[in-house]
Formats: sequence, structure tokens, C-alpha cells
Amino acid sequence: MSTPFPTPSCWLAHRVSYGETDAMGVVYYANYLHLFERGRGELIRGLGFSYATVEERGIFLPVREANCRYLAPARYDEIIHIHTGLAAQSRASLSFVYEITNADQSAILTRGSTQHAVVNATGKPVRVPEWLQALFG
Amino acid sequence: MSTPFPTPSCWLAHRVSYGETDAMGVVYYANYLHLFERGRGELIRGLGFSYATVEERGIFLPVREANCRYLAPARYDEIIHIHTGLAAQSRASLSFVYEITNADQSAILTRGSTQHAVVNATGKPVRVPEWLQALFG
Amino acid sequence: MSTPFPTPSCWLAHRVSYGETDAMGVVYYANYLHLFERGRGELIRGLGFSYATVEERGIFLPVREANCRYLAPARYDEIIHIHTGLAAQSRASLSFVYEITNADQSAILTRGSTQHAVVNATGKPVRVPEWLQALFG
Amino acid sequence: MSTPFPTPSCWLAHRVSYGETDAMGVVYYANYLHLFERGRGELIRGLGFSYATVEERGIFLPVREANCRYLAPARYDEIIHIHTGLAAQSRASLSFVYEITNADQSAILTRGSTQHAVVNATGKPVRVPEWLQALFG
Repeated sequence: MSTPFPTPSCWLAHRVSYGETDAMGVVYYANYLHLFERGRGELIRGLGFSYATVEERGIFLPVREANCRYLAPARYDEIIHIHTGLAAQSRASLSFVYEITNADQSAILTRGSTQHAVVNATGKPVRVPEWLQALFG
Repeated sequence: MSTPFPTPSCWLAHRVSYGETDAMGVVYYANYLHLFERGRGELIRGLGFSYATVEERGIFLPVREANCRYLAPARYDEIIHIHTGLAAQSRASLSFVYEITNADQSAILTRGSTQHAVVNATGKPVRVPEWLQALFG
Repeated sequence: MSTPFPTPSCWLAHRVSYGETDAMGVVYYANYLHLFERGRGELIRGLGFSYATVEERGIFLPVREANCRYLAPARYDEIIHIHTGLAAQSRASLSFVYEITNADQSAILTRGSTQHAVVNATGKPVRVPEWLQALFG
Repeated sequence: MSTPFPTPSCWLAHRVSYGETDAMGVVYYANYLHLFERGRGELIRGLGFSYATVEERGIFLPVREANCRYLAPARYDEIIHIHTGLAAQSRASLSFVYEITNADQSAILTRGSTQHAVVNATGKPVRVPEWLQALFG
């Protein structure tokens, strides 16, 4: 937590559903990647766009790498908070970082990151278009 | 829509994530059962309780039957609305009905229902406890 | 079980993963619809085709209705068996029925059915093509 | 691929279902963590045990960290292969590595790793029990 969280960033609240838990009684580890996706969707949306619009313009951001550290579990019915930031932007890729906290944001439950390629509809890598660069400032 | 929607009832908004879609570009059919679960969780919560508390009191409501009719698809990034109502309550079971609508609630996308047993921690059917009956009025 | 299971039919074995369970320690109810999909995929495949090929030919079979009765739970690591049959075929729809059994097939855990429209790539209902009719004979 | 894959290791075939795909037409990135879990379950099982038995003995292996690199997509109906190896074993943790290949194992689609704590039923870290150490040789 010594390094400042990158900006632009956003928070998104999420209620843990029963279907997200597993037999250990906690959120199954793969489901945090779903939450990261919700987080970065919210971040893009908050910048005035939607990832749906990105795709309509023929640009796709498939995940090339994902990492997650599980520090503490989340349980059914808890409100958790997804903190998402744009970590880096290069010519052909974007990176996001994530922290998921408990209800009162006093504890970090998971930390993660994703790296995304920027490709066209045929899956070919392309430069980050100017409108997308501008979006992230 | 000619029959009135049962009460108590509630509405819950839900943003469609990418992970909920499938290769047809629409929400995968199984995921509506996740949404129904979110809906009935919200209904119980709105009555002053949480299903987590129900389980803490030793009562579980496993699904015995689920039905869903798919009228129109939902797509990534759409806000959809989950309308949930308590349909029936007998000595040993509870039933909920659901309607999921599009963003402006002008069209019903799916309709469904679930029927639940009322069991104790060992899975044995029990009568609906008074405090649970009272909850649903 | 008094009515004979419809033909053509097939069996598919499935190992329950941890990610399919929920906090009750059993397979989450929505996941059975995933298993039904695996079952009907296997049925179509066994008839000499794959649903992937069906889509390549411009025909899609979106689910219009799904029903499931939960008779007994399945747990982590269990081998369960998905029995799928073609229940009915009309000009513009197909129906499948399903039974999921425990490891030694001595008990039925869930029973279900799905009804599918037959549509083209734009989502418009079309007649079941002859090659698809022939498939199900 | 220059470093040899660690042993003990195992292979597990998996058919991609429709429910595992997303609107890009490929397996959704979070689902690979489900596949990794299937892989390590198979590895433990192949050593003469099941993770279910591990839990029955009061030992749990919650994931502390997961990493995944996505090299090429997997599509509906494809058979893919999950290669799992035990990467490291310390006093209080276990690590697995994974490679998922296409049908003929000519291309690696994803590479990943998971690190697990060894805890008792109350979630307290414990030493890897001897019988678990012996399992992994």
C-alpha cells in the first residue's frame, strides 16, 4: 500500500451472491477475475465510454495476463468494493490493477492485475487508437 | 402480465458483465438462475433479514425446482432489472417468481420461478419457522 | 421413470469440480443447466455432427425454456452421469430431456428439460433444415 | 518450454462447453482457473488420494496466488488438454503449474500457476502433514 494507487481509478460496490461461493463457504477464486472485469468495465464507463462502444468501433481488449493474490476471503451477502486503476498504457497494450476490499474498506481481500492486448476484429494487434488513448488521458 | 405480480416483491438492477455472456453474444441461459438468486436474496433482505441470517438460524432453503422462459436476450453492458415476488408459502416450502426486464422496463426478457424446500442443517425438511413466516407476512 | 426415456439418447460422465459447488457444499443449482448443455452437445455430436457445425451452417438453437427438478445433491469430486434424450422435434423447435444420476446410476439427482427455437444468424425463426431433421431421424 | 515440466504431473482432457465461452466467441479468461482446479484435482487423485479426502482429514488448500498467461484462445467444442505439475512444496505451502494445450497438443493456449496455503478447518496455517508430503513424494 506504500505505492499510490494509479489514476484514473474508480470504485464499484458488489454484493456477493450464493452462486459465487464454493464449498469452503467463500468466494471461489476464479470469480475474482469476473469482479476485476466488472471493475475495469466501470472504469472505462466512467471515462465517458463503454467497453461495448470500444468493441463497436472494432477494437477488442483480450486479456493477455492475469494475476491475483488472495489475502482474505469474502463470504455470501457481504458487500465488497472493487478498486480499479489504469496502471500502464503502451502502444499496443493496457494494464489495470485491482484491489478488492471488505464492506467498510478497512481490509484488502484480494489484489490483482490484468494486461490486455489491443486487437482488431480479426484478432490482429493494432496500435491503441487515439480516441482510446485520449480516454485514458 | 394479466395476473398481478405477487407481493411482497422487489426490484434489483443488474449490469450485464462480459463473463455472463456466451459465444452467441448474449447472457448464457444458466446465468439467469444466478440473477434469480440475487433477486430473492434482495427480497428477503428488504424484509429486514438476510438469507445469511436464515442460515445462521439453522434453516436452509435449497431449490427443489426452477423454471425459466427466455423471451428476449440481454447483452453485455446492459442494465437489466430483476423483479422478484413471493408466490406462495406452505408449511414446508416457499415459491418465488421472477421477471427480468430491459433497461427501461419496457420489455420482459425472461420469466421464471423457483420452489424451495425448508430444511435444517442436516437437510431434513422442517416446518417454516414462525419468524420466517412472519417475515413474509 | 415409468415413461421410457426418449431416443436418440446418450450418456456423458462428468466429474464435479470445486468451482461448481456453493457454500451449502453441493453443486449450485444453475450449474445443472451447464451440464444439460454438455449433455445435448454430446447427443448432437454422437449423431455425427457437432453443434459447432450447426452454427457454421448458420443455424442457432437458443434456449426458449428450461426446467429443472432437484431431487438430491451432488458433491465435489463425485462422478455424475448426464442422460440426454431428444424429446420432440417440430417445424421450428427442438426439445431435450435430461436426467443426472449419481456415480453408479442408482439414483436420479436432477431431472430437466429444455426447449429450443431454431433461428438463423439474425435471430429469425426458421424451419428445422432437412439435414438437421435427418440428424435426429 | 526450455525448463522441464515438473513432476509429479498429469494430463486431463476437457471439452469446451458453450457456457464457458463469452461474447468474443472464446473461453472467458476466468474459466481457465476452473480448468486449473480440475487439473490439480486430477493430479492429487492420480497420486492415490482425492482432494475431498484431504478435506475430510481436516486439511484445506486455499489458493493464495494465481497467475495466468493467455497465449491463444480456445473455442466451443474443442478438446483441450490440461497439463498440471507440482512445482514446489514447502513447510506450509504447495505450488502447481499448468499448461493448457489445443486438441493435438501442438500449441500451448495458456500457462499458469497457483500457490496454496495449507490450513486447518479454522483457516489457521499448519505444516504440510506427513501423509500429504508423502503423497507428493
